[in-house]
Amino acid sequence: MNAQDYFFKVKTPDEVQKTLKDISYVLPGESVGIEASLGRILAEDVYSPVDLPGFERSTMDGFAVRARDTFGASAGSPAYLRLAGEVKMGETASMKLSPGEAIGVSTGSMVPEGADAIVIIEHTDILDDETIEVVRPVAPGDNLVRKDEDISKGSIMLRKGRMIRPHDIGALAGAGILEIKAIKQPEVAIISSGDEIIQPDQKPQNGQIRDINTYSLSALARQAGALPISMGIVKDSYELLRHKLLESIDIADIALISGGSSVGTRDATLDVIQSIPDSEILVHGISIRPGKPTIIAKAGRKYIFGLPGNPVSVMVTFDLFVGYLIKLLSGIEQHEWKPRYVKAFLSRNLASAPGREDYVCVRLVDSGKILAEPVLGKSALITMMVRADGLIKIPLDMEGLEAGTEVDVFVF
Amino acid sequence: MNAQDYFFKVKTPDEVQKTLKDISYVLPGESVGIEASLGRILAEDVYSPVDLPGFERSTMDGFAVRARDTFGASAGSPAYLRLAGEVKMGETASMKLSPGEAIGVSTGSMVPEGADAIVIIEHTDILDDETIEVVRPVAPGDNLVRKDEDISKGSIMLRKGRMIRPHDIGALAGAGILEIKAIKQPEVAIISSGDEIIQPDQKPQNGQIRDINTYSLSALARQAGALPISMGIVKDSYELLRHKLLESIDIADIALISGGSSVGTRDATLDVIQSIPDSEILVHGISIRPGKPTIIAKAGRKYIFGLPGNPVSVMVTFDLFVGYLIKLLSGIEQHEWKPRYVKAFLSRNLASAPGREDYVCVRLVDSGKILAEPVLGKSALITMMVRADGLIKIPLDMEGLEAGTEVDVFVF
Repeated sequence: MNAQDYFFKVKTPDEVQKTLKDISYVLPGESVGIEASLGRILAEDVYSPVDLPGFERSTMDGFAVRARDTFGASAGSPAYLRLAGEVKMGETASMKLSPGEAIGVSTGSMVPEGADAIVIIEHTDILDDETIEVVRPVAPGDNLVRKDEDISKGSIMLRKGRMIRPHDIGALAGAGILEIKAIKQPEVAIISSGDEIIQPDQKPQNGQIRDINTYSLSALARQAGALPISMGIVKDSYELLRHKLLESIDIADIALISGGSSVGTRDATLDVIQSIPDSEILVHGISIRPGKPTIIAKAGRKYIFGLPGNPVSVMVTFDLFVGYLIKLLSGIEQHEWKPRYVKAFLSRNLASAPGREDYVCVRLVDSGKILAEPVLGKSALITMMVRADGLIKIPLDMEGLEAGTEVDVFVF
Repeated sequence: MNAQDYFFKVKTPDEVQKTLKDISYVLPGESVGIEASLGRILAEDVYSPVDLPGFERSTMDGFAVRARDTFGASAGSPAYLRLAGEVKMGETASMKLSPGEAIGVSTGSMVPEGADAIVIIEHTDILDDETIEVVRPVAPGDNLVRKDEDISKGSIMLRKGRMIRPHDIGALAGAGILEIKAIKQPEVAIISSGDEIIQPDQKPQNGQIRDINTYSLSALARQAGALPISMGIVKDSYELLRHKLLESIDIADIALISGGSSVGTRDATLDVIQSIPDSEILVHGISIRPGKPTIIAKAGRKYIFGLPGNPVSVMVTFDLFVGYLIKLLSGIEQHEWKPRYVKAFLSRNLASAPGREDYVCVRLVDSGKILAEPVLGKSALITMMVRADGLIKIPLDMEGLEAGTEVDVFVF
């Protein structure tokens, strides 16, 4: 492909996300025990099979009463009630409260039939075994929860598309629901390509380098809620790469090919992707730096990414595109309030070229106000990412940012 | 204990955190494979055993040259160099570059001895098998990384106390480090107490309620980086609770007793904690709502929390105190830039009592600006937490917040 075709096809990051959105689908559901469901996405609405708490329940220590028996009560003119017994925690309140009576209750115990409010113990005096004094009135419903006040039977508890939080798991347990249907976690197969790449447990010769991207990408995939599958290292060979890619899309939803920064390798990766049955190249080149030579394709219901090999590109392209697709496949429907940005002031001028989104690594420094210090160096260096706390974006249409500008730092 | 003693002992949330900080220690380290190390905390500094990349490496496709041979080159007056060969990816550059020569390289390949810069392919023309034209000059060091430019042997790669991120794992792999020492994850034993509590797989009778807190607390502990251990449900019995608590602090670093909202149970929990050998009550009552009746104790090197049983209290007290202690025991030393707050505008007035921190559940609504709508209801309801997106704090010294006030929402 010549330079003109190449530039003709370059898409903006927003266009790439729109393309991914248009062709994405939500993965099927699977049964998951609630104890393993933290962070998973609900595949269907959950309705409560029961009322919760299931019985009228006291929220305070005190006495169950008929509220009208306490109307007008004060320290000067208390209401006197006959003490008719006590409901123990965890027991059914079998006795019925009659007018003029009080029955002892604890926080959480069942309110006996006939009572419609709880007088807290601090507003009473026990005169003898049979009589209490009430010094403040209560209104019906005071200090108790109705049998279906928390959740009513048949009502919706949690909606499809929700990411499950700790208290959701508590609520499910409370309703006796021990399994839910969650969207399957997307499986992401990771191929590291390049004649120079060796396993980290091997000793590199001159010209060889240990595999970095399989490890970074696995952790990024896991952090994004996917299940990484390491496919190993493939030499720069059309046949070997094609074989590994077919195997990857057979077992996973998404295949990532990392490496291949040189023109020859990039072209070979493109050829291999195009040779996959039903494959369609969706994106070849993105107006972004770093990350421009990214390739995105679809083959049947599987997705293939050719990611440029350097560490900063890997982070940027993973987060903007692979992570974005993982969310789409996971079917998250709820508004995500997770704050991922820290406001900071840029410590120096940064230049950029209009027509492309620039992502720059920054270190955050708290010196009264929070400063974003660009981490300088070549994006081929893994330590760029280790030293940085996050990334800032210089938008498509800007020629740079001036020192002192307030920026949103996307923190790692 | 009478009311006066009780109030005398009440601490502010800040005092409680200071108390925890004063008596905390960092757990020991353990070996962890790098692939399982995401989010773990480094127990010791990591030094690089190697230079990275380990050889002088080209960052572009092009030709290795002596920079001085290109000085003054232009399209009108190109420099002519003798093409002396090519370095393939992953191979040792065995040939030596002589003055006036160029050797072909790819992105990532080794730079041959004698060369000090790379001319990118776009700035050259290949005239024949033996000669290239260079149309722009390069300076020494252009388009290559030195053998120790990424990481130099013996230098510090990652510092003790750092929470491991995806690219740290990549960097470790790149340096051939496959195992690290990480601080042990704190183990948190969770006891659910109360005569009314039953297992979620059982059918409750009137007056009984399924266990919620074991499930919420396990997930909260896991989210905070700890390892939860479910100890089951204990009836309100001094002997049973004492036995379970001894077992808990034997196997875990932190024991949580949840439930026990009634005065009698609270006192029993206090008695049991006081009976544990070497135990010391550090906190009994906190000026916070909800969560006031929280008990915190230390027994030897183990920590015991008596948490009030209702769901909103559990969330607030877990996050402010248990989660805080988990971080201390985990030895995180790095500045945490994780943004956990969303700015929003309060949708209505909220009253509070000075002298206590109030935590109020809010739902976030995006209607042009982000509104924080208080979720109203009794804090005994688990659905309060399910409906809310986060919490806002009304500080100790304020009598409330007015509608329209900008608030920081701590999102779940």
